[in-house]
Amino acid sequence: MQKKERRTRIVLVGTEGEINLGFVIRLALNFEVDEIYLVNPLINPFSDEVKRFAAKAAEIVSEKYIRVTNSLDEALDGIDLSVCTSGLVGSSSDVLRHPITPREFVTKIVPRYSSIAVVFGRESVGLTRDELAKCHLFLSIPASPNYSILNLSHAVAIILYELWISTKDCKLREYADSPQLSRILKIAEEIADKIIDDPVQKSRTVVAVKHILWRSGPSRGEASLVYHFLKKIKNTIDG
Amino acid sequence: MQKKERRTRIVLVGTEGEINLGFVIRLALNFEVDEIYLVNPLINPFSDEVKRFAAKAAEIVSEKYIRVTNSLDEALDGIDLSVCTSGLVGSSSDVLRHPITPREFVTKIVPRYSSIAVVFGRESVGLTRDELAKCHLFLSIPASPNYSILNLSHAVAIILYELWISTKDCKLREYADSPQLSRILKIAEEIADKIIDDPVQKSRTVVAVKHILWRSGPSRGEASLVYHFLKKIKNTIDG
Repeated sequence: MQKKERRTRIVLVGTEGEINLGFVIRLALNFEVDEIYLVNPLINPFSDEVKRFAAKAAEIVSEKYIRVTNSLDEALDGIDLSVCTSGLVGSSSDVLRHPITPREFVTKIVPRYSSIAVVFGRESVGLTRDELAKCHLFLSIPASPNYSILNLSHAVAIILYELWISTKDCKLREYADSPQLSRILKIAEEIADKIIDDPVQKSRTVVAVKHILWRSGPSRGEASLVYHFLKKIKNTIDG
Repeated sequence: MQKKERRTRIVLVGTEGEINLGFVIRLALNFEVDEIYLVNPLINPFSDEVKRFAAKAAEIVSEKYIRVTNSLDEALDGIDLSVCTSGLVGSSSDVLRHPITPREFVTKIVPRYSSIAVVFGRESVGLTRDELAKCHLFLSIPASPNYSILNLSHAVAIILYELWISTKDCKLREYADSPQLSRILKIAEEIADKIIDDPVQKSRTVVAVKHILWRSGPSRGEASLVYHFLKKIKNTIDG
């Protein structure tokens, strides 16, 4: 599955730390974010310190990729779906802070829009209520009730990761297909035929091996190694 | 749903950076990790710099919570399920690096074990092949093929977040229940009765309002505001 043609913008409001900004830029490259908007940052976004923490993503640190604006309105311009984020969830009467989860956001809402902006507030005090009111939605990352406030760049990491896996095929290993598994099973059956006399025990053993094989989802490489292992066992038994 | 009684240990091998360690400790408190093991760290894990980046979690920076060991074997002692992590995925012949995804790990595998350790390597070169071979499983976080290497603490953030939401009920807002939505719908119907003459148009409008209400999953607070808004509309129309 290809990533959908959707524009993803990160908006950071009043960012205070160069380390955090560098890390966010690195994450933006890790998860193919299209652009970063900074609203009134308190730091120089093009500093050596920012680039140091951006690591390989230092190559994208430029005014082409990172836009500095004076207002959140400007940073949300041209966006279909904006979501403000915070670790502080509101009481039942505070509808400005009735949140959605990242999972709900990426699976149920994002697919309907062609450009999205995810807005993160200041490290110290987050977003103001005026700023929260400018977004279409309010999102919070579930975490311990004893300490729910994540560091800025880690909140960014989690949301970008959720966006990424919701639009990408994240099967990381090349699975063995059914014919390959069947070949393994066949040899296992041949070995069982040789060394298990009781037909009931033999049949149950083959079933167990079959279930384990199909359930474990081995890679092609793993399956190949097991196949040759069993083949060697069979040859040894055959003498 | 309560978090299952499962022990979660983070193991960091050869950690090089105080900032990263501080951030990991903060995340450990954010997501209620039980203990951190450091295998041959290159830094002092109890330094002021570590505590600074741990933020509120500086309070847990002690030898009680953070154990320093000389070997990965020792750090995996007493653990049912260990998973090594890396941003580098292997070729089809390199079975040591055939990965599972974080989602697969937390949903399909973790629930069967009562203690787990997630192992992260050095910022510079990750884990050695000898170290990878000591874990039961190998995990990789899906990311851009152009730059798949996440910073250490951000990889930790994503995996702890996945573990958290797989064992916690992450409904963050208190949803309006069906009777509350029905009361809103009833007023909408009464208003429609007053101002829409065409019965077909009226009935279709009520259906549309109904679908939107039940699909949108409003909080109790949001539903209450909409209810009183419609009530005011009705009173105004009634004159």
